[in-house]
Amino acid sequence: MKLYTYYRSSAAFRVRIALNLKGLKYDSVPKLFAKNEHRAADYLSVNPQGLIPALDIDGAVLSQSMAIMEYLDEKHPEPAFLPADAIGRARVRSMALSIVADLHPINNLRVLNYLRRELKQDDDGVNTWYRHWVTEGFRSLEQLAGTYSKSGRYCYGDSVSLADICLVPQVFNAKRFDCPLDDYPTVMRIYEACEKLPAFAAAHPSKQPDAA
Amino acid sequence: MKLYTYYRSSAAFRVRIALNLKGLKYDSVPKLFAKNEHRAADYLSVNPQGLIPALDIDGAVLSQSMAIMEYLDEKHPEPAFLPADAIGRARVRSMALSIVADLHPINNLRVLNYLRRELKQDDDGVNTWYRHWVTEGFRSLEQLAGTYSKSGRYCYGDSVSLADICLVPQVFNAKRFDCPLDDYPTVMRIYEACEKLPAFAAAHPSKQPDAA
Repeated sequence: MKLYTYYRSSAAFRVRIALNLKGLKYDSVPKLFAKNEHRAADYLSVNPQGLIPALDIDGAVLSQSMAIMEYLDEKHPEPAFLPADAIGRARVRSMALSIVADLHPINNLRVLNYLRRELKQDDDGVNTWYRHWVTEGFRSLEQLAGTYSKSGRYCYGDSVSLADICLVPQVFNAKRFDCPLDDYPTVMRIYEACEKLPAFAAAHPSKQPDAA
Repeated sequence: MKLYTYYRSSAAFRVRIALNLKGLKYDSVPKLFAKNEHRAADYLSVNPQGLIPALDIDGAVLSQSMAIMEYLDEKHPEPAFLPADAIGRARVRSMALSIVADLHPINNLRVLNYLRRELKQDDDGVNTWYRHWVTEGFRSLEQLAGTYSKSGRYCYGDSVSLADICLVPQVFNAKRFDCPLDDYPTVMRIYEACEKLPAFAAAHPSKQPDAA
């Protein structure tokens, strides 16, 4: 398997964690955002969306981190990324999607670039934007994790799920943007517990071949 | 089942289509965005995210349209929202997520409100933003649908999938914002074929009890 990745991409970070949890080996193919390599013709022919990550499995290229993680969970059921019951599965997916489909897309690099270039926002404007959406997203995530985490080590129940895989890269990015995180003790406890796990640690941006 | 909905919410529109396709009856509980009813304390106690839709199933409240649709598909397998093979399932989820997790969140009402209120954008600025992200999203969707649609009636293969359920509300909204759509003939052919299906037609914003 080949993973088209970028060390600091939150979505690529998720997929790296997922691959590590499943014990799957892969080759990293870094695409440098600074050089716009993810929008170059050769990559667009691989992934027309021009977004990172994409996973090449024997020539079939899958995109969208959530779709890739669901695929990995279907093909390699252990350890399971979702609980066994349908309501539990929906709750975990909902927590994951509160990051994947609500928080992260608004704070993605291409959106921040638009704010800078088209709307002439300076660092302050961009940071205020970023922190606003983190606050929106983390407030509900804190409440959901408070309800569904059993041990306080994972978002749901007492094992790693898709929700944790999405939470850790989002917290990493929030810290990078100096977002105040004191109001989210459950989220932070989960972050600190998960980032120590070997599958998460090895997926960390600082451990990637393209890390600056 | 009770669906917390808003007639013009793209995410609620998806879930209405999904419920109709599965032949499931539900009661609509409209939350008027104009009156900020989705951020009122009584609704936040139901769905801490304060986002629409949420589906109440015997007291268990599920949020996030994609999580709700996956739940419905697991509990009520016919007609299937996803193909049988894992790669096909990943492709359909990827197309759906290109809307759910990339295009729609950036153009959601709360983001447009931020542009207006905090960044002082006028109608032109907001519309330019909206159309920019539609162009980004539809360009790749056109290519993906061109590759994976068999008959040109559906995004993937020859039956309705999660991708179509997400595409129709997104096109409806793009039309509302007068986005130029001539460059997306496959997307538009799918839209026109699907919106005629009874499950889609009955879910249309204009048919909802809270339609203006």
